[in-house]
Amino acid sequence: MKTDTIAAIATAMTNSGIGIIRISGEDAFTVIDRIYQSKNGKKKLSEEKSHTVHYGYIVDDTKENKIIDEVMVLIMRAPNTYTREDTVEIDCHGGVLVMQKILDTVVCHGARPAEPGEFTKRAFLNGRIDLTQAESVMDVISSKNEFALKSSISQLQGSLQKEIKELREKIIYEIAFIESALDDPEHINIDGYGQKLKTVAEECKERIEHLLDTADNGKILKEGIDTVIVGKPNAGKSSLMNVLLKKERAIVTDIAGTTRDVLEEQMNLNGITLNIIDTAGIRDTEDIVEKIGVDKAKDYLVNADLIIYVVDSSTPLDENDEKIMEMIKDRTALVLLNKSDLDTVTTEEMIASHLDQKIIKVSMKENQGVDELENAIKELFFHGKVELNDEVYITNARHKAALSNAKDSLNMVLDSIAMEMPEDFYSIDLMNTYEELGNILGESLGEDLVNEIFSKFCTGK
Amino acid sequence: MKTDTIAAIATAMTNSGIGIIRISGEDAFTVIDRIYQSKNGKKKLSEEKSHTVHYGYIVDDTKENKIIDEVMVLIMRAPNTYTREDTVEIDCHGGVLVMQKILDTVVCHGARPAEPGEFTKRAFLNGRIDLTQAESVMDVISSKNEFALKSSISQLQGSLQKEIKELREKIIYEIAFIESALDDPEHINIDGYGQKLKTVAEECKERIEHLLDTADNGKILKEGIDTVIVGKPNAGKSSLMNVLLKKERAIVTDIAGTTRDVLEEQMNLNGITLNIIDTAGIRDTEDIVEKIGVDKAKDYLVNADLIIYVVDSSTPLDENDEKIMEMIKDRTALVLLNKSDLDTVTTEEMIASHLDQKIIKVSMKENQGVDELENAIKELFFHGKVELNDEVYITNARHKAALSNAKDSLNMVLDSIAMEMPEDFYSIDLMNTYEELGNILGESLGEDLVNEIFSKFCTGK
Repeated sequence: MKTDTIAAIATAMTNSGIGIIRISGEDAFTVIDRIYQSKNGKKKLSEEKSHTVHYGYIVDDTKENKIIDEVMVLIMRAPNTYTREDTVEIDCHGGVLVMQKILDTVVCHGARPAEPGEFTKRAFLNGRIDLTQAESVMDVISSKNEFALKSSISQLQGSLQKEIKELREKIIYEIAFIESALDDPEHINIDGYGQKLKTVAEECKERIEHLLDTADNGKILKEGIDTVIVGKPNAGKSSLMNVLLKKERAIVTDIAGTTRDVLEEQMNLNGITLNIIDTAGIRDTEDIVEKIGVDKAKDYLVNADLIIYVVDSSTPLDENDEKIMEMIKDRTALVLLNKSDLDTVTTEEMIASHLDQKIIKVSMKENQGVDELENAIKELFFHGKVELNDEVYITNARHKAALSNAKDSLNMVLDSIAMEMPEDFYSIDLMNTYEELGNILGESLGEDLVNEIFSKFCTGK
Repeated sequence: MKTDTIAAIATAMTNSGIGIIRISGEDAFTVIDRIYQSKNGKKKLSEEKSHTVHYGYIVDDTKENKIIDEVMVLIMRAPNTYTREDTVEIDCHGGVLVMQKILDTVVCHGARPAEPGEFTKRAFLNGRIDLTQAESVMDVISSKNEFALKSSISQLQGSLQKEIKELREKIIYEIAFIESALDDPEHINIDGYGQKLKTVAEECKERIEHLLDTADNGKILKEGIDTVIVGKPNAGKSSLMNVLLKKERAIVTDIAGTTRDVLEEQMNLNGITLNIIDTAGIRDTEDIVEKIGVDKAKDYLVNADLIIYVVDSSTPLDENDEKIMEMIKDRTALVLLNKSDLDTVTTEEMIASHLDQKIIKVSMKENQGVDELENAIKELFFHGKVELNDEVYITNARHKAALSNAKDSLNMVLDSIAMEMPEDFYSIDLMNTYEELGNILGESLGEDLVNEIFSKFCTGK
């Protein structure tokens, strides 16, 4: 079947040095031949070697001033390409208008605009990568910190795929054995097989549980800790922001297709990302409690992973502090007793008598106690150690759900063994486990689901 | 002299499908050899053919998890490159963090971060392009409309350079003749030369004047018409914006290095860009006259190329209208008499009795009169015709200033001829003309000035 040829701008729709228009499909070379001209006139790039770069012009012969841009064109022949299809990349000037004009010209000459993620979807459908690898592509792009990047690159190289495939091989082996034994009871002895299967199922379950265990840390390491800073006016909330932001350059990202209701300042503390929730209310008024009220503050607090409560130790506690302490008493929170450089009016003991949370004495002015804050955060979330090792982490909710289902099915296998049910009972639940794991790799996943996964991609990827 | 090797992210610092890190200089291949690894282990790209594409990994051998990203690398040997130096382009995943990590790795292994525009500056210093071509690079990128793009691409291909070189050749020929004649009066007869030079100087002056004539239209065609919409509340200002924006998709650009105090909505009307000045005051209050007052509105009006005054014909004129009319009476303005679908209270005649500006009856609600508005704008700015022909346009203030100086010097030559001054007087002013024109091409331009020009470029270009 001949697939149609797709094209998209693969760089950001923002003026910058270089832009890329990507074309993939059986007509990719036909399209570029129609619109490419070398310094010395028309030239057929379709006749050039694969993986070569050519300098020339994109032209529209139907126009009087026909040169659209001076470009470099990359020619890459199937199957050694991203999509496994013939692929052309046009490196052009990175202006929004000029990129759009080139894309329009490409589309006029035989390609159609690609859907978001359609290049990667083709890589998946054409069997170059499995679904875990395809999903990792967007994870690489949206990585917020070193950990997220390492973990996504590792997944892109197939680390999760490998683990899942190994599990599936173990399971399919057992399924095959059961089926053979049931088909041919004369030659294959199934006595005592339940105990043997129990060992395998328990081992598989353990490995799945281990993967599931990585999911919580994985999510927080990858996405960051949603953090809200609360406190009365002048307690030092802004100073805390500034001290943290100065410590590590904040990375401001503009993730295509993502709209958030609140803005965040993101900062990396030795590999952990803090997403400091930065609502207009919280930032502009400098005081969420008095000015926008406890109710509004609660909205932000409810969804936070971490609340940092800043107290000015040089002023007494009042009813506002009581309200805050009431709100955060059952949450993951840290208290910063700021202005330790001034005379102390409010002591650690006074706060401790109201609130059972870790209290750290800091002086934002003198930059004291910030390391202790960092350590306290690591202690709270990772028991003190954040490791960037080669372990496979589950960072995708879809994978987590499938693993959880696979585990449930294995539990049913183990129950059947315990209850000494007939062997064909084992087989059904083993097959469910096998299929759930297959879903992670994208095997036999419905078209709608696949489309939904890729719809969250950037255009041009 | 060995030049150092520079590197930069050439795509936007925004998450997108693909990012590019560009390396140029004598060590470009040494750097990539240190950090590139193919599927089958280390591989020396420095030994590969020029203009080839290679698939592999960027690695940092000093780290345990050493793979940073899966990439494609373009190898291009001097002198057939953008900078005329050895050049490497790394096509990586377009995430802000991953691009930054790769750039850091490149810098750790022997390159230094490039200044804005440094690649193009090297192309200029290494003689691949002249300064008009170098300047056109950023013009291509920041093109807001078809005209600006065509004009920049034409300049990039050397159209302005060609015109300026021709003028300089004519002038240097005359200088050489005068010098020879003065050196060797016995063999070269200079009698009646003044009249001959007059013809040449007048022709050159005419050509320079023609270029200068293109500058005003060139600027407006390239940059757009700065337009402010004024009028009382509910006169239909927002509807006008909406109608205009619906007519042509607005192009929102985010030009690196440009910070504007006011936001603009840009729209293209058949090749002309309107920059509708969109201040918070004007947009949010829906009424600049009553709410933020005439004074503030004036600030925006003073710098506008065009003022569109929207009047609600179904309500009577009042003192606010009088204030507006007073402000715009000596400006380039158009009056839109809106709501022509309702009963008329304010007529064209009433406005015409106060204000001598073109009045157009429109109904935003019924989308009537918008074509007439477009035509009126073209009439005001281009006497009805906007032509995208092959003419060379001056769109750069630096070029305009140099042409203006060159013209002044030619006038002095013509004065000297008229006053029958000695021939060496001609020579001095001709040399000034020659040098001013040379400045446009970047010849003998001071380093500071060259640096200033490139400092306005994108990083990575």
